[in-house]
Amino acid sequence: MAGDAQATQRRLLEAAAQEFAARGIAGARVDRIAEVAQANKAQIYHYFGSKDQLFDAVFNNLVADTLREVPIDVTDLPEYAGRLFDGYEQHPQVPRLATWYRLERADTQAPLEAIVKSNRDKVDAIARAQQSGQLPSRIAAADLLALVLALAAMWTSITPEFTELIAGHTAADRRRVITDAVAAVLAR
Amino acid sequence: MAGDAQATQRRLLEAAAQEFAARGIAGARVDRIAEVAQANKAQIYHYFGSKDQLFDAVFNNLVADTLREVPIDVTDLPEYAGRLFDGYEQHPQVPRLATWYRLERADTQAPLEAIVKSNRDKVDAIARAQQSGQLPSRIAAADLLALVLALAAMWTSITPEFTELIAGHTAADRRRVITDAVAAVLAR
Repeated sequence: MAGDAQATQRRLLEAAAQEFAARGIAGARVDRIAEVAQANKAQIYHYFGSKDQLFDAVFNNLVADTLREVPIDVTDLPEYAGRLFDGYEQHPQVPRLATWYRLERADTQAPLEAIVKSNRDKVDAIARAQQSGQLPSRIAAADLLALVLALAAMWTSITPEFTELIAGHTAADRRRVITDAVAAVLAR
Repeated sequence: MAGDAQATQRRLLEAAAQEFAARGIAGARVDRIAEVAQANKAQIYHYFGSKDQLFDAVFNNLVADTLREVPIDVTDLPEYAGRLFDGYEQHPQVPRLATWYRLERADTQAPLEAIVKSNRDKVDAIARAQQSGQLPSRIAAADLLALVLALAAMWTSITPEFTELIAGHTAADRRRVITDAVAAVLAR
């Protein structure tokens, strides 16, 4: 029975990731999530508490996966940005969930501690690499991380009006634009 | 009476910009917009047709303003990015509306023609500057525009978890990170 409960929770998290990525927090419908997961609404409230807490569970889950899969490499920030790009290509739900989160949550709720800590650790790693001369120190460590993250996500934040202009690009082309730009930021 | 109608439409557009920026298209409530604008729902449908068409009107309006206020300057792309940043600082609704639009519309509706055309014109201007040697030509014109736009908007797409890391930054600090990065992309 414990196995059944785990399987139901996993199906609910998958269905919720899909629903939240498509419609955001306010737009998501709990009954649609239950239906796709072959479960019922009562199970969602039992396992996760509320729609908001279900979103937190999905977000922590997917973000934790991404952080695990793409650890920072201060000796090669261009390639780190490229691997973040690869992750967004493979899991387009991740940047969408992060964007909904920013639009719907930023002003009202405290940020998730796991991600605050992860960002702080990355800034510390960059700052140490700057002290030891591995990275140029004329850009503050937090700014350098912000630049790398913004460039890695640049194609996910392109509005639909831009799409036709890059219609001929392969994923490798788009990846190279990112890694070249990060290299340029570091080289100057 | 024509003046009254214009004043009502202007109040409706302002209230709608506020409501859509805060809650997105699905989350916006037409009766809240009517109340804030001291109008009624029937007037919204009369003047704009539907909630979706009201969003289009707001978006076209604000985007048209931004395009007018910040024309591209191919001889100084770092400063162009800086002026886009200034525009987002002054009108934080603009990047929020663009982001809701991307999340809620990209897959279902054709992009707005005014913005498609504006992007195409900017890419053409960059391409001409590349042909005349004013801009380096190793980056494709569309990619260069995408980089400038992504960097100009980098602080608007930062998730809340990042905020504490840049708490000490003034607007001028954040602007300089952007203009320096665009200069670095061009210099390499």
